[in-house]
Amino acid sequence: MRRTGVWLIGARGSIASVVMAGVAAARRGIAPLAGLVTQRPEFGASDLAAPEAFVFGGHEVRAGALPDIAKAVLESCRVPYLADALREDLAAIDRHIRPGIVRGAGDTVASMADAAAPVDTDAAAMARIRADLDAFRAAEGLDRIVMVNVASTEPPMDPQPAWDDLAALEAAARGTAPVLPASALYAWAALSGGDAYVNFTPSLGSDVPALRALAEARGAVHMGKDGKTGETLVKSVLSELFARRNLRVLSWFGQNILGNDDGRVLENPRNKASKIRTKDHLLRRILGYAPETRVGIDFVQSLGEWKIAWDHIHFSGFLGGRMQMQFTWDGCDSLLAAPLVIDLVRLVELAQRRGERGVVTSLSSFFKDPMGTEEQRLVRQDEDLLAWIRREA
Amino acid sequence: MRRTGVWLIGARGSIASVVMAGVAAARRGIAPLAGLVTQRPEFGASDLAAPEAFVFGGHEVRAGALPDIAKAVLESCRVPYLADALREDLAAIDRHIRPGIVRGAGDTVASMADAAAPVDTDAAAMARIRADLDAFRAAEGLDRIVMVNVASTEPPMDPQPAWDDLAALEAAARGTAPVLPASALYAWAALSGGDAYVNFTPSLGSDVPALRALAEARGAVHMGKDGKTGETLVKSVLSELFARRNLRVLSWFGQNILGNDDGRVLENPRNKASKIRTKDHLLRRILGYAPETRVGIDFVQSLGEWKIAWDHIHFSGFLGGRMQMQFTWDGCDSLLAAPLVIDLVRLVELAQRRGERGVVTSLSSFFKDPMGTEEQRLVRQDEDLLAWIRREA
Amino acid sequence: MRRTGVWLIGARGSIASVVMAGVAAARRGIAPLAGLVTQRPEFGASDLAAPEAFVFGGHEVRAGALPDIAKAVLESCRVPYLADALREDLAAIDRHIRPGIVRGAGDTVASMADAAAPVDTDAAAMARIRADLDAFRAAEGLDRIVMVNVASTEPPMDPQPAWDDLAALEAAARGTAPVLPASALYAWAALSGGDAYVNFTPSLGSDVPALRALAEARGAVHMGKDGKTGETLVKSVLSELFARRNLRVLSWFGQNILGNDDGRVLENPRNKASKIRTKDHLLRRILGYAPETRVGIDFVQSLGEWKIAWDHIHFSGFLGGRMQMQFTWDGCDSLLAAPLVIDLVRLVELAQRRGERGVVTSLSSFFKDPMGTEEQRLVRQDEDLLAWIRREA
Amino acid sequence: MRRTGVWLIGARGSIASVVMAGVAAARRGIAPLAGLVTQRPEFGASDLAAPEAFVFGGHEVRAGALPDIAKAVLESCRVPYLADALREDLAAIDRHIRPGIVRGAGDTVASMADAAAPVDTDAAAMARIRADLDAFRAAEGLDRIVMVNVASTEPPMDPQPAWDDLAALEAAARGTAPVLPASALYAWAALSGGDAYVNFTPSLGSDVPALRALAEARGAVHMGKDGKTGETLVKSVLSELFARRNLRVLSWFGQNILGNDDGRVLENPRNKASKIRTKDHLLRRILGYAPETRVGIDFVQSLGEWKIAWDHIHFSGFLGGRMQMQFTWDGCDSLLAAPLVIDLVRLVELAQRRGERGVVTSLSSFFKDPMGTEEQRLVRQDEDLLAWIRREA
Repeated sequence: MRRTGVWLIGARGSIASVVMAGVAAARRGIAPLAGLVTQRPEFGASDLAAPEAFVFGGHEVRAGALPDIAKAVLESCRVPYLADALREDLAAIDRHIRPGIVRGAGDTVASMADAAAPVDTDAAAMARIRADLDAFRAAEGLDRIVMVNVASTEPPMDPQPAWDDLAALEAAARGTAPVLPASALYAWAALSGGDAYVNFTPSLGSDVPALRALAEARGAVHMGKDGKTGETLVKSVLSELFARRNLRVLSWFGQNILGNDDGRVLENPRNKASKIRTKDHLLRRILGYAPETRVGIDFVQSLGEWKIAWDHIHFSGFLGGRMQMQFTWDGCDSLLAAPLVIDLVRLVELAQRRGERGVVTSLSSFFKDPMGTEEQRLVRQDEDLLAWIRREA
Repeated sequence: MRRTGVWLIGARGSIASVVMAGVAAARRGIAPLAGLVTQRPEFGASDLAAPEAFVFGGHEVRAGALPDIAKAVLESCRVPYLADALREDLAAIDRHIRPGIVRGAGDTVASMADAAAPVDTDAAAMARIRADLDAFRAAEGLDRIVMVNVASTEPPMDPQPAWDDLAALEAAARGTAPVLPASALYAWAALSGGDAYVNFTPSLGSDVPALRALAEARGAVHMGKDGKTGETLVKSVLSELFARRNLRVLSWFGQNILGNDDGRVLENPRNKASKIRTKDHLLRRILGYAPETRVGIDFVQSLGEWKIAWDHIHFSGFLGGRMQMQFTWDGCDSLLAAPLVIDLVRLVELAQRRGERGVVTSLSSFFKDPMGTEEQRLVRQDEDLLAWIRREA
Repeated sequence: MRRTGVWLIGARGSIASVVMAGVAAARRGIAPLAGLVTQRPEFGASDLAAPEAFVFGGHEVRAGALPDIAKAVLESCRVPYLADALREDLAAIDRHIRPGIVRGAGDTVASMADAAAPVDTDAAAMARIRADLDAFRAAEGLDRIVMVNVASTEPPMDPQPAWDDLAALEAAARGTAPVLPASALYAWAALSGGDAYVNFTPSLGSDVPALRALAEARGAVHMGKDGKTGETLVKSVLSELFARRNLRVLSWFGQNILGNDDGRVLENPRNKASKIRTKDHLLRRILGYAPETRVGIDFVQSLGEWKIAWDHIHFSGFLGGRMQMQFTWDGCDSLLAAPLVIDLVRLVELAQRRGERGVVTSLSSFFKDPMGTEEQRLVRQDEDLLAWIRREA
Repeated sequence: MRRTGVWLIGARGSIASVVMAGVAAARRGIAPLAGLVTQRPEFGASDLAAPEAFVFGGHEVRAGALPDIAKAVLESCRVPYLADALREDLAAIDRHIRPGIVRGAGDTVASMADAAAPVDTDAAAMARIRADLDAFRAAEGLDRIVMVNVASTEPPMDPQPAWDDLAALEAAARGTAPVLPASALYAWAALSGGDAYVNFTPSLGSDVPALRALAEARGAVHMGKDGKTGETLVKSVLSELFARRNLRVLSWFGQNILGNDDGRVLENPRNKASKIRTKDHLLRRILGYAPETRVGIDFVQSLGEWKIAWDHIHFSGFLGGRMQMQFTWDGCDSLLAAPLVIDLVRLVELAQRRGERGVVTSLSSFFKDPMGTEEQRLVRQDEDLLAWIRREA
């Protein structure tokens, strides 16, 4: 049986703990896996890895005991019954979690980090991460590793000339000045060893010309950015209504409130800038014109793991008459993200076995800002995925 | 230039007055036509009739002056500036409106009717309608007529054995007992003369085996039922989110409130039964299973032409966690319906010229309960329409 | 220490189980009581009974184990952690629960009843209930008993001549034809023994002239009807905005969906009639005129204990301009009702000790349809309560 | 008959044009005044001035023709029928509008101003404003003048030592450095002449110790700040529900979107700071503790005069169970503000005649941040107003 390692960046965060708890619960027969895209009948014929066989590890900058964190997250998600039964399984995984890096992750994350690995250069950071992955592979006898970034959003970094060329990047990385944000250092480490990389956050990750070239060269697959779990997911189907019916969207205002650490990090305007960037441009793409849009995100601690979005859509139709629609989305972000992370691991693992290399654009349906494609419509993205899965099934 | 007659059943109702006012405004250059599906670039190459050249007539059971009715409707729709400029044009159309029939339209419509044509048998009703259409064609020198039912919803009638066979139907129609509801008598009259028929309401219309056979025999085209303008339109895109993401819909509750005469007619539980029937089954079709569903419709007079829908969607995902989404749709029903009526006239007129006969299933995107197809997903329906329009463009 | 017995009608229902679990949890120090009106500082000086000392019993027509029922209810209410710790306490209470009567409770309740007491006449029913109360007092050495009706809503019964006079009622009750609905038989039994009676439901209860006279005669206190826990509670404050600002409410439409057995019983239109009657008239009272109003209640099983209300308010102001407001209330009905039940027991117990008799109108703030007063404004009702509590504090 | 002059700061703004159009329409008998608080029966016995007799003038920094502005505003407010009939009346008022000052009004207002009066010192600005008021009184033979600030919100200014003492203020005002923001210069000019002053905005206005003393000395009345028209109005009644029911508010998040020039000015974070300050503190006052709160305001141009607020309220009750409520308020801000402006003119004019001086705290119900009182509950504020109006009626 193939052994697949799943290496999570942000391994003691909300999404990671739900992913690991869900797989452990399925393995123990306590709760079946549910809500995976890859559980739909259309995926039945494809030879996807069984999530129950995943081996977990990861990087994390905060101390804390994974079983306790998972218990708190699952309680906030209103599925509290699991946590106690999984204490030992989660504690075992916790021992595979290695200190992460805060270099290039922004001040807010740095201020929350109490268990980060000290590194002086980007090159040292990358080497350390790579060594952790190699040790994981060796210790667990893994066939493949998929790294998934589920850490909090980092601030955007202005593009650097060294990003365009791997040799230049390697040279710059030996200096003390950061040349890549944390997310890209992780991606670099994964891809340099031929491992798969998935960026579930709006951070930079592998979206760097030199890293794209590296992936092609090493035969590694990767994809991102920013998991499409809530308000943007709704937008990516609902906007089709207006486009197909030729109703003109005048303005689309969206406001998100959320209460977990991801929300706390987004309180920092620099981190928020990365996030809003990926949430706002799909309407122009789907509608074919640019209505007034705004996307707000605010931290409301009492909500815990829940993210509530209110969207107001103002549109005009026949005779210029103006009408409106509103929706609220009231979802547990981690519960929505976790199955997609598992789906993505299964799908990139398949892509690796199929011998693909570089960006796996067929996975665009999972992301707010899909690499390698301008397609933003969920239905079309999903049709692309189904075509891809059928290709060699 | 081709002359197309548009014959509206419910010609002094809200939808009809907005259709006629909109076309008259465009003809006079006061307000351009906007919000038609057939104005999208994808329809540019097809040889569709210009709405400005439509000639209007219709049947109506209520007295009243069309210019006054249109003025009130347009004010309620918040596009009040038009009505005065169009008084004469609408008065001219008004003179082509003929007394309609209430036979088989239900008690509520009958109680509102003060200008209905007295008829003793279904056959007499049908003959009278047919004579009105023939007179319209002759008087206006029309190439083609498209009848569109935009009247209030009638109560459902239990299927009759005579519906299955045209000869049996003709025999039964000579008796004094009604064998068809009003909507079907209109459809019969149109199809028997080879004219096109569109059913924008949930009433029976042409959805009768004998009338389907008649359409094929006479080379007439027809389609229905029930224009997809508001809450159901949203459902037909939004439900794809849950299907494609494998999120299980536990319940989907929808409540509509509306204030115009269509709402008043739906106060009668028998009329409402027809309506709810077409609004409720698409979820099962799209999702592939049957969640709990309810659809309510209530009359709130103060809303005038506006229909407000609130939908609450309860769904579960990973680990069985339960989440919810709500939306409100706040639309002017007549403004939403009118462009679709114009689109449908253009499209069935094209189908006629293309030599099609029978049900035009490619127009499914316009209907809540499309004849001849089980497809309910708006995006797929629209793709079907685009494929059809390209076929011989 | 005074011993107060609390006798709940519907003792294995959702509200009763939350009341009993909450008091048991407080007694064991697992969870403090919270959210009681009588915990506000203004009530500090009054000599109210400690809920922890309440002794519980009640009537119920359905079989089932209270600990299991409470566990399911608390899980649905998202406070699942308590149920296991309270198993024994709840099992002890369960032994005090006696078979209730379905006579006059309606077909729906009758169809759900598998543990009802068989009785042939109203008089026999009343006597049996009275005997259960006397046995409870004797067994537990109680100073006072407060009966609270938290059973499902029964259908309305047309007023009978015998309701006006106690002697006539006693005579009629000996016949086999029902002369009172179940709720009134319970109230009769309580009041006839001088015990306090609170009607938390829209059922008839003690709102019968002969029973009112009986209460005065026996020195018993009572109050009702229909606990104000959700949508109506919001209405009773929000409508003041429109009244005080002289904004004219054109229409106020409310729709409730709920998933527990109370909702299931309301599926029956006869039971629903009682409920809607008490929810709809307060607007006229507060506003001073009668806007268009509708209140809908529908059963959506997936919601469990949760009741979600959507209200749409259409109003006009300066220059006749029309505006709107909407709200959704997303509450756990039992969690909202339980503290009010405890408050009411404390307050009527105090009224008893103060020597009051008859209807305690000062408790109007707790009810949708308060007996003995037309006041519907929450703020004024609460001021009345504060004045009453200060009176002899 | 008494002649009352109404002098509006921001006289070509949305609120001012609706106020003036409404009074003109009432005077001509086109549309009755509606939606005034002072039209409630409780105010019937008091000798309030008739709005139809008001004489209007004002200051404005922008050019433009009042009839055109009013037409656009009324169309956006969906009461379009009035504007044409009032052209001449509004043009006549327009001739009384004098150039306003931008000194101390902030960069955003300054950038929009094309008709401001050039002034070099605060003293010169104040003198110029005062001269305009004197000329208005003389030209129109007025008994009294009420100045109302309905201009856009200005940025906050840090308190200055000179604010505490009139002599110091007069001295400082002769320097070239601004010592007061624009709103306070207007207030100073009004109060110094014994005229009444009302601050309908969150700007500083008369809330300056030296100006308060001046008002007492001159026998002038004044009140503010920030008209309570929408989201905050709802908060000031709805929060009572939670307080009276002892339900603990965990968080209350509010988001406003609006499309008129007031919204555009609030795009500037400095101006927004003044606004949010007055919207956020009432919850703490009413609830007696400080829940998490946030208030957002964003500009969405397509909405025109409409302001839409979405509020999400998260609260806990019995057993710590967490529940939520949401509302959306969809109001035309100018239509909501205009009647309150007329009410305030009538009420301060009465206060003047009653010989009151200084802050009229009894008018607190009209303001988000009422001067001279901490009372924020609408019901109690309104009861205070009713007591005041009855005092000498």
